[in-house]
Amino acid sequence: MPFQTVLQVTMDDFELACKGLYRALTIREKYMRLAFQRFPDTPSQFLRKIEGEQWKPEDQVLPVFTSPPKSGEDPFCTKDFPPNLGYVARMKDGVIYVYKDAASADKHQPLNHPGPDLVTFIDDMNFLIALIAQGPTKTYTHRRLKFLMSKFNVHEMLNEMEEMKELKKNPHRDFYNCRKVDTHIHAAACMNQKHLLRFIKKSYRVDADRVVHVLKGKEMTMKELFASLNLHPYDLTVDSLDVHAGRQTFQRFDKFNAKYNPVGASELRDLYMKTENHISGEYFATIIKEVASDLEDARYQYAEPRLSIYGCNPNEWTKLASWFNKHRVFSPHLKWMIQVPRIYDIFRGRNFVPHFGKMLENIFLPIFQATIDPNSNPELSVFLKHVTAFDSVDDESKHSGHMFSTKSPKPEEWDIVKSPSYSYWIYYMYANIARLNQLRKERGMNTFQFRPHCGEAGAVTHLLACFMTADNISHGLNLKKSPVLQYLYYLAQVPIAMSPLSNNSLFLEYNKNPLLEFHKKGLMVSLSTDDPMQFHYTKEPLMEEYAIAAQVFKLSTCDMCEIARNSVLQSGLSAEVRIHFLGTNYLKDGPEGNDIRKTNLAQIRMAYRYETLCYELNLIREELKMLPLFAHNLP
Amino acid sequence: MPFQTVLQVTMDDFELACKGLYRALTIREKYMRLAFQRFPDTPSQFLRKIEGEQWKPEDQVLPVFTSPPKSGEDPFCTKDFPPNLGYVARMKDGVIYVYKDAASADKHQPLNHPGPDLVTFIDDMNFLIALIAQGPTKTYTHRRLKFLMSKFNVHEMLNEMEEMKELKKNPHRDFYNCRKVDTHIHAAACMNQKHLLRFIKKSYRVDADRVVHVLKGKEMTMKELFASLNLHPYDLTVDSLDVHAGRQTFQRFDKFNAKYNPVGASELRDLYMKTENHISGEYFATIIKEVASDLEDARYQYAEPRLSIYGCNPNEWTKLASWFNKHRVFSPHLKWMIQVPRIYDIFRGRNFVPHFGKMLENIFLPIFQATIDPNSNPELSVFLKHVTAFDSVDDESKHSGHMFSTKSPKPEEWDIVKSPSYSYWIYYMYANIARLNQLRKERGMNTFQFRPHCGEAGAVTHLLACFMTADNISHGLNLKKSPVLQYLYYLAQVPIAMSPLSNNSLFLEYNKNPLLEFHKKGLMVSLSTDDPMQFHYTKEPLMEEYAIAAQVFKLSTCDMCEIARNSVLQSGLSAEVRIHFLGTNYLKDGPEGNDIRKTNLAQIRMAYRYETLCYELNLIREELKMLPLFAHNLP
Repeated sequence: MPFQTVLQVTMDDFELACKGLYRALTIREKYMRLAFQRFPDTPSQFLRKIEGEQWKPEDQVLPVFTSPPKSGEDPFCTKDFPPNLGYVARMKDGVIYVYKDAASADKHQPLNHPGPDLVTFIDDMNFLIALIAQGPTKTYTHRRLKFLMSKFNVHEMLNEMEEMKELKKNPHRDFYNCRKVDTHIHAAACMNQKHLLRFIKKSYRVDADRVVHVLKGKEMTMKELFASLNLHPYDLTVDSLDVHAGRQTFQRFDKFNAKYNPVGASELRDLYMKTENHISGEYFATIIKEVASDLEDARYQYAEPRLSIYGCNPNEWTKLASWFNKHRVFSPHLKWMIQVPRIYDIFRGRNFVPHFGKMLENIFLPIFQATIDPNSNPELSVFLKHVTAFDSVDDESKHSGHMFSTKSPKPEEWDIVKSPSYSYWIYYMYANIARLNQLRKERGMNTFQFRPHCGEAGAVTHLLACFMTADNISHGLNLKKSPVLQYLYYLAQVPIAMSPLSNNSLFLEYNKNPLLEFHKKGLMVSLSTDDPMQFHYTKEPLMEEYAIAAQVFKLSTCDMCEIARNSVLQSGLSAEVRIHFLGTNYLKDGPEGNDIRKTNLAQIRMAYRYETLCYELNLIREELKMLPLFAHNLP
Repeated sequence: MPFQTVLQVTMDDFELACKGLYRALTIREKYMRLAFQRFPDTPSQFLRKIEGEQWKPEDQVLPVFTSPPKSGEDPFCTKDFPPNLGYVARMKDGVIYVYKDAASADKHQPLNHPGPDLVTFIDDMNFLIALIAQGPTKTYTHRRLKFLMSKFNVHEMLNEMEEMKELKKNPHRDFYNCRKVDTHIHAAACMNQKHLLRFIKKSYRVDADRVVHVLKGKEMTMKELFASLNLHPYDLTVDSLDVHAGRQTFQRFDKFNAKYNPVGASELRDLYMKTENHISGEYFATIIKEVASDLEDARYQYAEPRLSIYGCNPNEWTKLASWFNKHRVFSPHLKWMIQVPRIYDIFRGRNFVPHFGKMLENIFLPIFQATIDPNSNPELSVFLKHVTAFDSVDDESKHSGHMFSTKSPKPEEWDIVKSPSYSYWIYYMYANIARLNQLRKERGMNTFQFRPHCGEAGAVTHLLACFMTADNISHGLNLKKSPVLQYLYYLAQVPIAMSPLSNNSLFLEYNKNPLLEFHKKGLMVSLSTDDPMQFHYTKEPLMEEYAIAAQVFKLSTCDMCEIARNSVLQSGLSAEVRIHFLGTNYLKDGPEGNDIRKTNLAQIRMAYRYETLCYELNLIREELKMLPLFAHNLP
């Protein structure tokens, strides 16, 4: 490859930038380890080299996901849970601690489950805030990113045909039969608009006389419900359903949210898209099972739908788990995630919760309890086995005005109606997940990743908070605005689930989407649908998403297969399944980790990505090597 | 509507432009009438008003299409053809004339079937060539088009919500269940790449030992054929099939054409995508029937696949008709078209034909003969019933160097290896179709439209030739380059089948496609796939085409339904079917002609389009009205 180090910065500036980037990477590594989230081997090896230490494969920390049920095994089996540990879980300063018993809880002598320390976290965060604004680091990362872009363009011109030749020689595997995961999709909008319409019509034909709703204590049949809305399902169309985003929703997240109500009627949302209603969420479960069945028919497509936990009430988990078990909403093609909407201000305003701490407690305490004594809530314990991650969702463009610092009120003291900042939310979600994972890992249970919505809009500090805490993120558009963060996301290979069709309706026109740019530079991007109900037209929303990206961005087959492979790596699929989809060595970086027979991804591409990443990391190492005793002289 | 006449040209220039546009419209009207092609009522009414004459509904000339078979009727029935007229058809100067008998043929005393006159045609053409280069007309039309664009933007801002309200109130009809026709698709590429791959694999599983090919007199089984290509179908993938267009095909029509060969092997193209081969085109017929069956399942989608007649041999028609009848390739969701590739130079170079006239004779004489005596070739007569139009195809960017004029050699004298120009081809195709339609109309048979590929690349004169001769065209991209032609296509409402995904792979990037601009200005555009095998990814190529246009161009439902309605109007569907799809008054212009219950197209939009067209036509009329005795003083 004909390229040379393109530095063009003074040596002092270069040193400063490298020190900063090094420390930023160690910060992410620390918080990933603490929560059993992933930090890839390659940057980790370079960090150890810089520190003059030996990298050991045992250092690798991985999340634990539940394996698919073996043949004959019931995914809803409530037997064989481990026994009650008798521990006590209790919240203190917004974080749930586990104690041997009530006495140690009263004295706050928790068991040794390491978690993040707030003061250190704020310190790390402030360091990163300074770093992303630091002139020399901005210049350096900006230049490196420009270089990465040009380097990929050169790679493409030189090797495109060679990559294609590799793929053509690869028997029995093409883009259609390599696995792809829809890494970002909301359960309430996982069906397309036509599917929902058909389902509503069908349900009316079958269930017109069924009692489906209670209004002011009076039972209503479906017929009466539709009559009260002046509707007849026969006449209903995609237009009158009005769940599709359009030109009206651009830059209007509020209007977009209203689209979740079919025909603008929240009664229909309750009936068809909620787990909790007069028919115990039966229709919603059926719709999701139909979507799962479509994925099973398509064979190579998987999805990770998100269900909501609001934190308004401690019973939410039990109800959700009961819905899941009652309707047996399981498919090997689905991995479940929990999304927590950041709508504290609304709940507090209506006096549903006394303070922010109570919301956190409602969200996390039931899981801690079910982890300590799984048999106390067997349905929840079953459900948790199938949950892989937590998401944090809401309109990021809403500005909170609060600045997260050591002086911020503790969650239990946060009793004003205003919402805390994004970073505050993220920290407390992360801190609880980290401690929860420690406990679950100890018990041999599956752990949870943190995969928030981040960088769709709002301040770049959102992306900073998630660089510290999230295994991977959804959206990431605003990485465009911060070269330092973009370069750090690259170096640490933080996966980003992008949804250009969703962005096109909400925040950014399709051809301005940075997906292609990120992909070329080597950031680890995947494609996802976000909300097929609102954005997609065809029966296969994920294929539609790939097809449009391929057409508009002129992606090659190799590009598409790389993105598909990224989606499997980013997902919550278990190790066995990954081995089946990606090959035995999928955890290894570089060409060694790629099995072209399964991924249809050219080794030339893998080698290019690996060499390029090592080159970038090595630039930092070479610079820091020259500083005496660097490891003990961290900035 | 707050708008004013925006003229900004001097009165002399305005007069000149109006005279020219008026005459251009009368030219198109004349040639449309002559060939039983469509010229809409509204411009026709204005032309009569300008001439001080009465417009009569009887003046309306319409093509005749075969109605779908009634229940129990066999579309392949060879009975009940009209008797032999005993006429003689013979070519003279590249055009086939019909004579009472051989004696009148020898004396060239043809029956009275009016057709175009070459000298007048060249005269009309030269007038138009001068017009499109005329400064004042260019200024005037450019300003009018800019105005039409702004006017639509204003309409959209004012009425978008009202249009949507109309659609929401329209029961049981939405974009999904309004009819759409794929107005431009080649039979040889009408399946998507995955479909072709599956078909090849399946055929091998079933027919491995069947003799499917003859090489140098030696019969070969499918197994032997694949072995000779060093291939095993089990290993075959979409990548090795290599029929999909990619970045390599951009601006390379030659590379694109090679993509028609699966695995680069013309043997496989012969076996799977030809009507004439050792298995009598059985596989090709089966694939097309599978595509038809998918369209039938989708219920609201139709397609107009094109089959090739090369003009290399007079038997081509008989062979094609025999394939059609033998495999019973009929579906109510398909309307057939004949495409004639403009590859005279290749055939002449190999000495397959002595001159260009022989190609025209091979193309048209068999149809004239089957029209005169249908029972002489019953299979062809059946096939012709289901053919609706002729297309002319090839790479338009190839420049011929020849300039069509009265001094051009007659087709029988054109014996050089070089191809004649696009306009020359178009004129002789048109002249033969026009005379053929006269004869067929007289016999009560269906007529044929002329629907060539035009304006995909090359000179703008292509668009000029088709403005004179074609009922409607495919592509039309180059209308961007000539405001006069663009405005004329608007005034005469010439339908344009656009394929932005095809253009994206060949000639023009998606977001630069003029589809949105044309649609906004009010040109009559439809969406089509061109070659699903090469361009599309999903199982529903036409829906993919609509979905991508909707997303990238942010089309509203009303826009999409208008484009879908245009596609039905542009197609060769019969009057009965159109009434069923569009409503009883579909032939009427303006809101009166629209049945929103069937089209889901807002009357507000229809009214806007109608008023706007009348306004533009009226500007011309008002100007010309002031000239004394204008009708007798044409420029």
